[in-house]
Amino acid sequence: MKLATLKDGSRDGQLVVVARDLATAHHASGIATTLQQVLDDWNFLSPQLEDLYATLNGGKARHAFAFEPRQCMAPLPRAYQWADGSAYLNHVELVRKARGAEVPASFYEDPLMYQGGSDDFLGPCDDAVFASTDWGIDFESEVAVITGDVAMGSAPEAALESVRLLMLVNDWSLRALVPAELAKGFGFLQSKPATAFGPLAVTPDELGPAWQGGRVHLALQSAWNGRQVGLTEAGPEMTFHFGQLIAHVAKTRRLRAGSIVGSGTVSNNDWTKGYSCVAEKRAIETIETGAPVTPFMQFGDTIRIEMCSRDGHSVFGAIEQRVVAAVAAG
Amino acid sequence: MKLATLKDGSRDGQLVVVARDLATAHHASGIATTLQQVLDDWNFLSPQLEDLYATLNGGKARHAFAFEPRQCMAPLPRAYQWADGSAYLNHVELVRKARGAEVPASFYEDPLMYQGGSDDFLGPCDDAVFASTDWGIDFESEVAVITGDVAMGSAPEAALESVRLLMLVNDWSLRALVPAELAKGFGFLQSKPATAFGPLAVTPDELGPAWQGGRVHLALQSAWNGRQVGLTEAGPEMTFHFGQLIAHVAKTRRLRAGSIVGSGTVSNNDWTKGYSCVAEKRAIETIETGAPVTPFMQFGDTIRIEMCSRDGHSVFGAIEQRVVAAVAAG
Repeated sequence: MKLATLKDGSRDGQLVVVARDLATAHHASGIATTLQQVLDDWNFLSPQLEDLYATLNGGKARHAFAFEPRQCMAPLPRAYQWADGSAYLNHVELVRKARGAEVPASFYEDPLMYQGGSDDFLGPCDDAVFASTDWGIDFESEVAVITGDVAMGSAPEAALESVRLLMLVNDWSLRALVPAELAKGFGFLQSKPATAFGPLAVTPDELGPAWQGGRVHLALQSAWNGRQVGLTEAGPEMTFHFGQLIAHVAKTRRLRAGSIVGSGTVSNNDWTKGYSCVAEKRAIETIETGAPVTPFMQFGDTIRIEMCSRDGHSVFGAIEQRVVAAVAAG
Repeated sequence: MKLATLKDGSRDGQLVVVARDLATAHHASGIATTLQQVLDDWNFLSPQLEDLYATLNGGKARHAFAFEPRQCMAPLPRAYQWADGSAYLNHVELVRKARGAEVPASFYEDPLMYQGGSDDFLGPCDDAVFASTDWGIDFESEVAVITGDVAMGSAPEAALESVRLLMLVNDWSLRALVPAELAKGFGFLQSKPATAFGPLAVTPDELGPAWQGGRVHLALQSAWNGRQVGLTEAGPEMTFHFGQLIAHVAKTRRLRAGSIVGSGTVSNNDWTKGYSCVAEKRAIETIETGAPVTPFMQFGDTIRIEMCSRDGHSVFGAIEQRVVAAVAAG
C-alpha cells in the first residue's frame, strides 16, 4: 500500500492512504491519524489500512479525494531516528579519487553511516531554505526504509525483516561545511540540514520483484532545473543492502519502530548513467580535467527526484523542491 | 516545576508532576499525557502544569501518590533529536594529551558535537545491556536541556531562550568502538548505545541562581560501585554554554520542540574533583604513569549520578543503573 501525510497545521499531519495510480487518496481516520501511530502498532493497524487501500484502488472508497503531492508533508514529518548510509561504494571511490585519497579496505565490509537530525523533515514540495550559496548547496537522491522494532545484535537477514515501508529521500548537503565536520570526526550537524522525503511511503510488496535482496532494483531519476542529470540504477551496485545497514546500527542498541535508514547517494560505475548529487559530477570533472566545473546549486534552482516501476508508473511520487534564500533570523 | 514520565506499558509513558521534595507525584492527566505533547504546546500547557505543581507542593493535591524513581522512564522516552556537545574542553585536552595529540585551536571557538540516536532512551534505573565488556563500557555524567522551537540561524542568546527543561544524562559510551568510528569521520553509531536520563526534567527556575549564563553552577556526583569517583563542578569550566551549543546546531536548520542538547562529560581542571567518565581517569593515569590502570566497567557494576542544590536537595533525582550482559538476539 501507499501512505502519505497531509498538511493540516499540526506537527505530525494527517495520515492518508493513496491509490496505486496516485490519483486519489482517503483519510485513514478511524484507523490512525499519524504514520508513527501505525508504526507503533503495525500488526494491528496495517491490515486495516490495507483493506482501505484495496477499497480505494477498486474505486469503492466513499470519501476519496484528489491526491495532491503539494499538500504533503514528509510521510514522517519528524521521526525518532534517521540514520543514513553511504552504501554505494562507487560514490565514495569517486569522491576520494578526486581528492587523491584511497578508499580504506575496511569500507567494503563496514558501512559508512551517519546519524542525522530527524526533528524537522521537509515535505516533497517544500522549499529548501539556506542562508548562503557559499555553503555549497547540493541535493542527494536516495532511497530509505522505515523499520519496525529491531532487536539489539540482529543479523542482517533478521534486520531486513523489520522493513515496513520505503521512501525517496533528498538528503540536502552543504558541501563547503563537510570537510571541517569530517575532520572533527564527530559527524555532520551543520553540513546536513533538514532532509526532504518523497510524498509516499510504500510497503515493499508495491515494488514487486524490484524489491530483492534488500535492494530496490529500479532507476532513480534526478532532474536539476528541468534537465535530467541522473538515471542511476539503485539495485545492483548497492554494496550493503538495507538489512546490513540496519544491522550495523543495531550492533550495540535496539532500533525502535519508525527508525528511518537511508541508502546514501545512488551511484553507478557507468558514468553515462549520470549523477544523484552535484558533488559526484564535480568529482568526475576533477578526475577528468583536474578541477570541478559545475557549480553547486543556486537560489531559485529546482530539483526533481522520482523512481518509476518497470512499467513506467511513479512508485513514490516525486520530490520537487526549490532552493530559496533564508530571511535572517531574529 | 519538576516533571517525570512513568512506565505504563506504552512507548511514551505517562506524564506526572513531581513535588519539589521528590516525595510525591500527581498524574498530569486532564492536562497532557506525554511530555512531548507539553513541549509541542508549551505556552498553553505548562502554566496548567505549574498550577498543579503548586498545589502538589502545598500538600493540597487530591490524588497525590508516592514518587518512585524506579517506575520512571526517561522524561522523554524517545525524542526527535538528541545532539550532544563536548563542551568541557578540559576533557578534550586530557584525552588528547594522553594520546600525545594537540587540541586544534578551532576547538575553542567551534564546539564539538555529535548527533545521537534518540529512538530508545533508558530510564534512570533501567539496566544498561551490552553484549561484551571488550567494547570498553563507560558512563558519562552530563547535563542536558530540552528546547522549544528554535529558528534557523538563531544567535546563542536567542537560542538560550528556547530552553524549557533540564535533565541529567548518562551518555553510555563504548570506548573500544570509538577510534574506528572517529577515523571514519561520520560520527558515532555503534560506540554510543542507548542513552539514559535522570528521572526528572525540571524548569530552569528550579535551579535558582545556579542557572546562570546558560550553565548549571552545581556539582555533579558520580558514584561507581558505591564509591564516589567524581564531584565535578558543571558551571565555570563549561567552555560553551547551552545557548552556544543550540545555536551551533541551528546554524543551518531549525530545531523543533523537544530537541535534547547535552553538555558532554563534565570535567574540571582540578583533578582532585574526580571524574565523570572512566576514560578521563584512564587519560590521567596515562599522563602520569604512561599507561591506563583502571579498567572500564564490568557486568554487575553500578553507576549513580546525581546533582544537589547548594542546600543539599536532589535537583533531578538520581540515575542508578547496573551494567548487564545481553542475551544473544535471535
